[in-house]
Amino acid sequence: MKVAVIFGSTSDKEKMRPAIGILNEFGIPHADYAVSAHRNPELLTKLIQEFEATGVECVIAGAGLAAHLPGVIASQTVIPVIGVPLEAALGGIDSLLSIVQMPKSIPVATVGINNSANAAFLAIQMLAVKYPDLKRKLIAYRQRMKEEIESNYYKGVEW
Amino acid sequence: MKVAVIFGSTSDKEKMRPAIGILNEFGIPHADYAVSAHRNPELLTKLIQEFEATGVECVIAGAGLAAHLPGVIASQTVIPVIGVPLEAALGGIDSLLSIVQMPKSIPVATVGINNSANAAFLAIQMLAVKYPDLKRKLIAYRQRMKEEIESNYYKGVEW
Amino acid sequence: MKVAVIFGSTSDKEKMRPAIGILNEFGIPHADYAVSAHRNPELLTKLIQEFEATGVECVIAGAGLAAHLPGVIASQTVIPVIGVPLEAALGGIDSLLSIVQMPKSIPVATVGINNSANAAFLAIQMLAVKYPDLKRKLIAYRQRMKEEIESNYYKGVEW
Amino acid sequence: MKVAVIFGSTSDKEKMRPAIGILNEFGIPHADYAVSAHRNPELLTKLIQEFEATGVECVIAGAGLAAHLPGVIASQTVIPVIGVPLEAALGGIDSLLSIVQMPKSIPVATVGINNSANAAFLAIQMLAVKYPDLKRKLIAYRQRMKEEIESNYYKGVEW
Amino acid sequence: MKVAVIFGSTSDKEKMRPAIGILNEFGIPHADYAVSAHRNPELLTKLIQEFEATGVECVIAGAGLAAHLPGVIASQTVIPVIGVPLEAALGGIDSLLSIVQMPKSIPVATVGINNSANAAFLAIQMLAVKYPDLKRKLIAYRQRMKEEIESNYYKGVEW
Amino acid sequence: MKVAVIFGSTSDKEKMRPAIGILNEFGIPHADYAVSAHRNPELLTKLIQEFEATGVECVIAGAGLAAHLPGVIASQTVIPVIGVPLEAALGGIDSLLSIVQMPKSIPVATVGINNSANAAFLAIQMLAVKYPDLKRKLIAYRQRMKEEIESNYYKGVEW
Amino acid sequence: MKVAVIFGSTSDKEKMRPAIGILNEFGIPHADYAVSAHRNPELLTKLIQEFEATGVECVIAGAGLAAHLPGVIASQTVIPVIGVPLEAALGGIDSLLSIVQMPKSIPVATVGINNSANAAFLAIQMLAVKYPDLKRKLIAYRQRMKEEIESNYYKGVEW
Amino acid sequence: MKVAVIFGSTSDKEKMRPAIGILNEFGIPHADYAVSAHRNPELLTKLIQEFEATGVECVIAGAGLAAHLPGVIASQTVIPVIGVPLEAALGGIDSLLSIVQMPKSIPVATVGINNSANAAFLAIQMLAVKYPDLKRKLIAYRQRMKEEIESNYYKGVEW
Repeated sequence: MKVAVIFGSTSDKEKMRPAIGILNEFGIPHADYAVSAHRNPELLTKLIQEFEATGVECVIAGAGLAAHLPGVIASQTVIPVIGVPLEAALGGIDSLLSIVQMPKSIPVATVGINNSANAAFLAIQMLAVKYPDLKRKLIAYRQRMKEEIESNYYKGVEW
Repeated sequence: MKVAVIFGSTSDKEKMRPAIGILNEFGIPHADYAVSAHRNPELLTKLIQEFEATGVECVIAGAGLAAHLPGVIASQTVIPVIGVPLEAALGGIDSLLSIVQMPKSIPVATVGINNSANAAFLAIQMLAVKYPDLKRKLIAYRQRMKEEIESNYYKGVEW
Repeated sequence: MKVAVIFGSTSDKEKMRPAIGILNEFGIPHADYAVSAHRNPELLTKLIQEFEATGVECVIAGAGLAAHLPGVIASQTVIPVIGVPLEAALGGIDSLLSIVQMPKSIPVATVGINNSANAAFLAIQMLAVKYPDLKRKLIAYRQRMKEEIESNYYKGVEW
Repeated sequence: MKVAVIFGSTSDKEKMRPAIGILNEFGIPHADYAVSAHRNPELLTKLIQEFEATGVECVIAGAGLAAHLPGVIASQTVIPVIGVPLEAALGGIDSLLSIVQMPKSIPVATVGINNSANAAFLAIQMLAVKYPDLKRKLIAYRQRMKEEIESNYYKGVEW
Repeated sequence: MKVAVIFGSTSDKEKMRPAIGILNEFGIPHADYAVSAHRNPELLTKLIQEFEATGVECVIAGAGLAAHLPGVIASQTVIPVIGVPLEAALGGIDSLLSIVQMPKSIPVATVGINNSANAAFLAIQMLAVKYPDLKRKLIAYRQRMKEEIESNYYKGVEW
Repeated sequence: MKVAVIFGSTSDKEKMRPAIGILNEFGIPHADYAVSAHRNPELLTKLIQEFEATGVECVIAGAGLAAHLPGVIASQTVIPVIGVPLEAALGGIDSLLSIVQMPKSIPVATVGINNSANAAFLAIQMLAVKYPDLKRKLIAYRQRMKEEIESNYYKGVEW
Repeated sequence: MKVAVIFGSTSDKEKMRPAIGILNEFGIPHADYAVSAHRNPELLTKLIQEFEATGVECVIAGAGLAAHLPGVIASQTVIPVIGVPLEAALGGIDSLLSIVQMPKSIPVATVGINNSANAAFLAIQMLAVKYPDLKRKLIAYRQRMKEEIESNYYKGVEW
Repeated sequence: MKVAVIFGSTSDKEKMRPAIGILNEFGIPHADYAVSAHRNPELLTKLIQEFEATGVECVIAGAGLAAHLPGVIASQTVIPVIGVPLEAALGGIDSLLSIVQMPKSIPVATVGINNSANAAFLAIQMLAVKYPDLKRKLIAYRQRMKEEIESNYYKGVEW
């Protein structure tokens, strides 16, 4: 079980950190890379071949602006790719559309703008289809979340 | 191995048909439902419990306008949910944002506007993580696609 | 006479405070809750049943991003629901569209982005249809507002 | 019990017809007007005074483009005003924003673009706060809707 | 020769100040008002009648959000009205569309978002059609502006 | 008294026709031109000099896409320029923004998308500041419009 | 002197035809390809190497939706790439942003939505920097265009 | 070999500085100007004639709001013009559309919002078609960029 986390530029690193936090919390091994789709496409291709060789089962790719990284990866592998639109201009709508509007047959599983945490949760849900233990962890996580909301609920809102 | 395809209103049916075509082409068993998240939430909850009970491993949900269906499903199960924004107004941007901008911890894997075919491809890629046979089919599909493009390429463009 | 004010996450609390101020100013009893539609849908359903049982006559629900909370409540009760789009990304347009574009038969009465004060005014206007005393208070409030504007007017603009 | 339905131009009439259908179905008396806020503001003011005098309890106002009609009515009465953004340009986003973004203290209860049916449902939900009989009708309507969805569900989707 | 400058709320005052600066620079008499179209429509109507009575020849109206003020004035007089969209949400696009998209026969002369200076220049250009002296001042102003740009040009750009 | 109507391409002609109808109805002499700002800037400059020489008192300029025509004219004369954004792509929002967002000191009086009729009304209102007879005609026109709305009002809405 | 014209899918062919017309009119040799960046990235890479080997001096690439084609080409060569956003959804704004918002150091020269003719003109202008003969042709073309506009101008507008 | 860099207002200067840095790094002679298209069109025309006379081979023009500068230059010369949309309102979308949506036959090569660095890279790529030495420098630059990314890659991501 392994996830790859990739982003195109060091300026995107902080926005991807929540994904790493969630993956660690669920004990998911991950390999992480800062490689630009545009500035070094050959290295990206080499990396994708490494993903295949080392048994990566899901890729999380964050990118901003004309965010081609997730789609370029998706075009070179059938490992599912999760795209995280990162805001760099126009509130991130450029990045969202550049990631989600992929042509027929090469999908990218897109999550919300800057929401790398949800990319990690989605990766875990995908892997949980295969790994029952992970599914149990996810269900337990949701249960704790519900209890926390419920306990806040009994305290009421203090204005 | 089973996928559920769900959409909220009969007016959405034709836009979801490409997903069914792809699932059939790959021999994926699927159960399909027209159930509105807003007009019959209890039935939707019952359905989600059926998904769990019958071993559904991925849900594809298409919806338009304030497209809550995929997110409402995602909030009630840890089975991965793929959301298809269907265009009914504003070019579908309302539906896209209503599906993709989910809060932390409850992701929906969003594909392009009206692109239900890509929802099916994404479902297949997710399942292929677990089922090696499906992965082989996917790789073969991509290979045929490449060959077709290549053969067109040698013919050249006729204006 | 009772209004329920509900929002999905503690980060939304400050944006909902103006609604509370207006309700208090008009002496409207209100019960307030921080309950997420996505993270604890069962608690939300239980809450909606409490609304019915305790005679809540109007619900004000604030939410951001893919703001499903008002619509999910509206799908489970015929008590009128007022939705407040809260800005968390894209200037709040995602939230506005996720709230206002509800399908036929399940409306949400939507007010402006971050404008929880107007949700309270709208709730009061709805209740004033039934409670003549409240209508008198509203008319008096508007009258004072007019007088204040008029008195500023006679002072003129100082540049 | 009376609702007023108003729209600014004869070109908007067909888009408002669904509201009339729903009001009739629920047996709600209504008075209907085609009066422009911009081309005859004095007549509009006279009309609003008639609303007050004849016991109108809710106003539904549909308008397109720089859709001022609902807001102008709301500024002259405390009867709740429901605004229906009608599409005439830009997919109706101009009309939606012109209606929903009202300043503090003068709300308009906004529904979806071209969704005059939902304006009628919202009006009925508002009146049902006061009229228990109407509330029973609404609950029965929702029940029938659920049953219809459920019966379709048992038939399954035919592709 | 007189211009009226009007805006709906004291929070808009600073954004309207550049208009006042330009009017003063050109020696244009102006009368200025803070009167809300929504919170005191009767006072606004009274004011418009004053404009007619006192020979106001052009109105500059600034407003934000669902910016009805310029259109409401335009509907009650044939004095030309210049609308200034003020940014309060969504970058001001709500205000721009609420002002510019007026229905046939009741135009508002719209300038750029927050650009109250241009409203003043436009008012002066309108009045210059009637007052040759003002036209000469405008031409001289433009001439000085050109000379300033030209003199900067000969200095070159210092990086 | 003379107005110039100008548009950049023959494909824009039909959208400008309503302006001509209104000018004729009010008996305003006008000179009309199809001259592109981009394809023949020298001819445009020559034309603007003709406007000055022949006493044109207001220019109406319609353009689509990156609609520079109104702004380019405004930069070469102090005669007031009214810009009509014509829809050719993106619902006309490109054209609207290219016309309305002019820099400080060079305003264009912008009307709604495709609304050339309002450009004519605005031109007439501007000229009416100088020509009392035109003002009387405008007031009479508005009066007739009001009477027509009022007479429709007494007939009621037929569904 | 050679230009390559490339587009991703046969559905884009008609929108690219105007570019071919212009290139032919100016006698520019061109080689044309239908190759998807996503469905056959290896063929695209091979093609780009052919461009280098055969002396292609400018690439015109048209694409819709998440339009990665121009950027992917630009990342693999320093030959200038002109991107044509083709409309397939959302009026083409998705495609425009996916093409124009490229990261630092890998630009794509973007033209208007569906405006493949302008891509050809831009290619010709770029080549004219090197080939004086082409520059003369361009100047002559512009001159003829001016004369045509001027001759229409003397005929006047017929309404 | 010479590039001209031009922008309309001193407030745009800092956003254009990255272009100058890149041009200097590649040793490209450049002449730089702050000249407004709207406030001094005659000076702009004179400047464009200087470009022709002094052998300028590419123009970089940055502008904000209704950004006419690049298009106005492009209409007066066949030297290729690169437009840089500068953000001053609405996230820069007004400027982007005002630059990119040029009419047929007068293209502007548009780069990303505020991305003047890419305008310089694009200018260099255009000139490299003619100057083999520049092409070698570009290829070397890209090579160094790849090596830097690759060396970061071997260090791995430190969280």
